[in-house]
Amino acid sequence: MQKKSCQFSSKKVDYYFDADFTMLEKLAGKEHTVIITDENIFQAQAKKFKGWNCIVLKPGEAFKVQATVDSVIEQLIESGADRKTTLVGVGGGVVTDITGYVAAIYMRGIRCGFVPSTILAMVDASIGGKNGVDVGIYKNLVGTIRQPDFLLYDYSLLKTLPDAEWINGFAEIIKHSCIRDLAMFKELESKKLNFYKKDKSALGKLILRNAMLKSKVVEKDEFEQGDRRLLNFGHTLGHAIENMYELSHGQAISIGMTAACHLSAALAGFKETERVVKVLSQYGLPTYAEYDHNAAFEVLKKDKKKERTSMNYVLLEKIGKGIVQQIPMNQLQTLIQELPA
Amino acid sequence: MQKKSCQFSSKKVDYYFDADFTMLEKLAGKEHTVIITDENIFQAQAKKFKGWNCIVLKPGEAFKVQATVDSVIEQLIESGADRKTTLVGVGGGVVTDITGYVAAIYMRGIRCGFVPSTILAMVDASIGGKNGVDVGIYKNLVGTIRQPDFLLYDYSLLKTLPDAEWINGFAEIIKHSCIRDLAMFKELESKKLNFYKKDKSALGKLILRNAMLKSKVVEKDEFEQGDRRLLNFGHTLGHAIENMYELSHGQAISIGMTAACHLSAALAGFKETERVVKVLSQYGLPTYAEYDHNAAFEVLKKDKKKERTSMNYVLLEKIGKGIVQQIPMNQLQTLIQELPA
Ligand SMILES: NC(=O)c1ccc[n+]([C@@H]2O[C@H](COP(=O)([O-])OP(=O)(O)OC[C@H]3O[C@@H](n4cnc5c(N)ncnc54)[C@H](O)[C@@H]3O)[C@@H](O)[C@H]2O)c1
Ligand SMILES: NC(=O)c1ccc[n+]([C@@H]2O[C@H](COP(=O)([O-])OP(=O)(O)OC[C@H]3O[C@@H](n4cnc5c(N)ncnc54)[C@H](O)[C@@H]3O)[C@@H](O)[C@H]2O)c1
Ligand SMILES: [Zn+2]
Ligand SMILES: [Zn+2]
Repeated sequence: MQKKSCQFSSKKVDYYFDADFTMLEKLAGKEHTVIITDENIFQAQAKKFKGWNCIVLKPGEAFKVQATVDSVIEQLIESGADRKTTLVGVGGGVVTDITGYVAAIYMRGIRCGFVPSTILAMVDASIGGKNGVDVGIYKNLVGTIRQPDFLLYDYSLLKTLPDAEWINGFAEIIKHSCIRDLAMFKELESKKLNFYKKDKSALGKLILRNAMLKSKVVEKDEFEQGDRRLLNFGHTLGHAIENMYELSHGQAISIGMTAACHLSAALAGFKETERVVKVLSQYGLPTYAEYDHNAAFEVLKKDKKKERTSMNYVLLEKIGKGIVQQIPMNQLQTLIQELPA
Repeated sequence: MQKKSCQFSSKKVDYYFDADFTMLEKLAGKEHTVIITDENIFQAQAKKFKGWNCIVLKPGEAFKVQATVDSVIEQLIESGADRKTTLVGVGGGVVTDITGYVAAIYMRGIRCGFVPSTILAMVDASIGGKNGVDVGIYKNLVGTIRQPDFLLYDYSLLKTLPDAEWINGFAEIIKHSCIRDLAMFKELESKKLNFYKKDKSALGKLILRNAMLKSKVVEKDEFEQGDRRLLNFGHTLGHAIENMYELSHGQAISIGMTAACHLSAALAGFKETERVVKVLSQYGLPTYAEYDHNAAFEVLKKDKKKERTSMNYVLLEKIGKGIVQQIPMNQLQTLIQELPA
């Protein structure tokens, strides 16, 4: 076990890497804790939940909605949860986003921790305090920014994680390397997914490195006025096409990162698109894809991150150095129309 | 107009006392603002809303629920509200609680201001950042603590306020004087409600004094670890009986304050119960009432502010000096059973 801490604006968050699930009892006693998880995890990891008070959600993004929040709150009331209760989300980003949100609003805020169970949640979703739910077609339209009290990393949870979810998580890892960490990018270039699946120690190091990378970015810019926006690399166009086609999040942002590399070439002198594309493919991710560029631009125009006449877009100056650049909407439209398929 | 500011943990809040509603245009341009109000206010003060983009809620506590929040969010989406939109709640505490809550969660937080239209909202509900909604029988079970950006006080709104609402507001004013301000208590002793209704200048001073009193208490203890709890004077038992009988909030806390005076006499040597009771009566509030003391204690035990085996209760040492005291539940039960009717 390796403990780290990060100091955010209103809270210190403790990270327990390479820990065992049973440690949860020290961080949050069984009596005053309610675990939130989903059916898949609850079944795949049944033993771990023995003796814990659990609320089990239906799995998947479709249930990351207010109706689920309403139902969790009802169950909390029934179980007598009060100001001294700790909520612990054990799961992927859907579970941690809902858990963090409920903890932020139940009795105006109760203690909360996460035990991320997907690569994506370990390196991304459970870090930084963003939480919330989707409203209709709008992802994460409602939520807050509020840090959890602790994160517990038990890598044994990953034994039952489906392959497709490994790939989703590595899309975010590659994203991190592109915007901030050339050395990690080089490591990724020299390995494959199967290496990390087999080498527990290498995987643990990689996860810790990514968790700390995101934490440092958020620590410096919790409310997304500056550098935190770099974490949206690949996500602007990614989100647009994720809704339009049946793509996983990792697939969508991989196509989005590829597109962002081309925009970076046009606007920021970026010269390494091929190298990024090669790593993405190496980890099972799509890069060029046929999609309706005009329709994607229309969806993207309605993204909640829009500024009125121009848009902040994350580009790469070089591998390991992301930048945020304002692009006028009409120029962006042309660039997107001209993207290679 | 008189401007004041308070610095809370994460935000400075600007107060514009004795201002005119039209000033809202300077604080929040018509184009990027959505006003939230209720049908009563919208009708009573129709002229003020001309030209503003409004969401009009059904009036009353029964609509301070998640379904209303869901509907407001839908309307915000339809109207194209984004990160740059300012939400302005024009109304009583129901409207400001909902507006503050929606502003806290829509796109993870947008700008917000209040124009309180009841005495209670002017001196209490719109100050301090608590917001939220009721869940079933549980008042304010869900919400956040998040300060608004500004408060605009236009006393002309009070012209149409029903008498019963004036009395509700004065219950909180008397509460403030009891816990913190002997001089104000003396002023209240020497006047009647009708005086303040007629003397706009005296009313303005009284409202400012109360708004600042609450603001200072919250400024020092935003997250209710200490002195902010004093503001619950009369509210513990008050909330319990408010639900049980058909009492207005002012009536309920007036009975609650009377009870708290008796507890103060028993536990803190308080000797001025009669003086407090006299002022409450003078402003049209009930003090002693027949109610089921045992049933009230049972409801109170389930109050979300409960500690496990004892309860923090606000008592008076003397008029103008409230204190928080932990009372073991069994002692509290006996004391409440023995309260005079
Ligand atoms: N808050 C943030 O900053 C942030 C950042 C990135 C993503 N997110 C959110 O995260 C969500 C995506 O997270 P995700 O990719 O982890 O998806 P997810 O939570 O839906 O999990 C993916 C699938 O894997 C299953 N699963 C999870 N762990 C398992 C395990 N150990 N064994 C077997 N099955 C397991 C789940 O049941 C689910 O079917 C999205 O809603 C996204 O908006 C949030
Ligand atoms: N957030 C806080 O710190 C805090 C503190 C105290 C109370 N509250 C909340 O405030 C609410 C009570 O507030 P309230 O007493 O203002 O109730 P309210 O908002 O229901 O208003 C009372 C009534 O007066 C009407 N009204 C309001 N202004 C009017 C005007 N100018 N002219 C004509 N009619 C008008 C309303 O339509 C309503 O029918 C409760 O929900 C309570 O929980 C919150
Ligand atoms: Zn992502
Ligand atoms: Zn009150």
